[in-house]
Amino acid sequence: MHLFYQPLISEGIDHLDGDEARHATRVMRLQKGDELQITDGKGYFYRCVVSSATKSDCYFSIIEKIETPQRGYSIHIAIAPTKSPDRMEWFVEKVAELGIDKITFISCANSERTSVNVERLVKKAVSGMKQSKQSRLPQIEDITRFDGVLDTEGEKFIAYVDTQNPELLKHASPKGDYTVLIGPEGDFSTKELSLATKKGFKKVSLGSTTLRTETAGIIACHTLHLINS
Amino acid sequence: MHLFYQPLISEGIDHLDGDEARHATRVMRLQKGDELQITDGKGYFYRCVVSSATKSDCYFSIIEKIETPQRGYSIHIAIAPTKSPDRMEWFVEKVAELGIDKITFISCANSERTSVNVERLVKKAVSGMKQSKQSRLPQIEDITRFDGVLDTEGEKFIAYVDTQNPELLKHASPKGDYTVLIGPEGDFSTKELSLATKKGFKKVSLGSTTLRTETAGIIACHTLHLINS
Repeated sequence: MHLFYQPLISEGIDHLDGDEARHATRVMRLQKGDELQITDGKGYFYRCVVSSATKSDCYFSIIEKIETPQRGYSIHIAIAPTKSPDRMEWFVEKVAELGIDKITFISCANSERTSVNVERLVKKAVSGMKQSKQSRLPQIEDITRFDGVLDTEGEKFIAYVDTQNPELLKHASPKGDYTVLIGPEGDFSTKELSLATKKGFKKVSLGSTTLRTETAGIIACHTLHLINS
Repeated sequence: MHLFYQPLISEGIDHLDGDEARHATRVMRLQKGDELQITDGKGYFYRCVVSSATKSDCYFSIIEKIETPQRGYSIHIAIAPTKSPDRMEWFVEKVAELGIDKITFISCANSERTSVNVERLVKKAVSGMKQSKQSRLPQIEDITRFDGVLDTEGEKFIAYVDTQNPELLKHASPKGDYTVLIGPEGDFSTKELSLATKKGFKKVSLGSTTLRTETAGIIACHTLHLINS
């Protein structure tokens, strides 16, 4: 069954908004009496039934509210935005499909871009969440200074290829609260690397090939899921 | 150093072609005497020096030919093309970055598309190979019938979520010659699944969330690299 998104369902909102409503009534052609599944993006699924549908509106009543259990670990990726916004949109969609808790865009010494379109990125995250039938929308943080993400608890990693001493992210401990820093195309500066390691971030390699920023982000997220599966 | 691609370098071709030449001379502004690195996509890197450069031409002489060792395993992904060609282009670029030996596009009962633009996909593969500083261009096969990829040796997997009995791809043996089948959005048909299992393909799950076709392909490729790293 197709999954729809209504973040305010728990606050009594009984209809789908904008694109979600149009998708339900024009593409999926849902009609009064049809069942649909809705998530609030906060860990709940709702089994619902359409109470009225027009070309632009879709009202529903809730039949059942279902809580999804939390994962035993959490993933936060702090990433330098790429020059091309497309690549960041892909990154967000893909990690939302895989499952991620939080994404922060960071400004670094070698950053190629100093702003992101958070609204558009949230839409990509919603698409990834719905596609993969999940009930938790990742938190997306706008551009933050590099040193603003360093004071965090849990298992902390900075992706940085050290050819002398490559430690692989796949050796992280299971069941952690992970934060991974992914740098810009020009990599982290020596100052940033030193600052992060002082704050307890471990240098890690993601594999044997040099990856684009967005690929590195996706692969880091997948690696952490794999060691917990 | 930036990496360029000239598949015919071993046959005596001493200049870059088309986009490669323009990139070298207009974007990178290489001039006579500058060093550049070239790959033939067949496992060799060449250290070269520019012998003459104009706005559209870049001639070179070879200083050194360097062979890259083979990986101890091989990856072949046979995948049903997605409706949107963009998604397949992304898939090809990303798996080329991660490293892959062969990609075959397969026609399945539920396929959403019956043709792919191989030329464009090869360009994406070249981009991924160069970006990740590799010297082997993956082989890309045009649309092939589903049953045309089943007679293969090595470790064979079909991505298919069996909720009763989920076997994870991450438990594949290291150092294999892997073939992984990735189905269309509507999944493999029961007939295709039965045909593949009869031919020795093992049903495997790629993780706990439902992934889009192109994401499943990328994640399968990365999983096989991880178990070999």
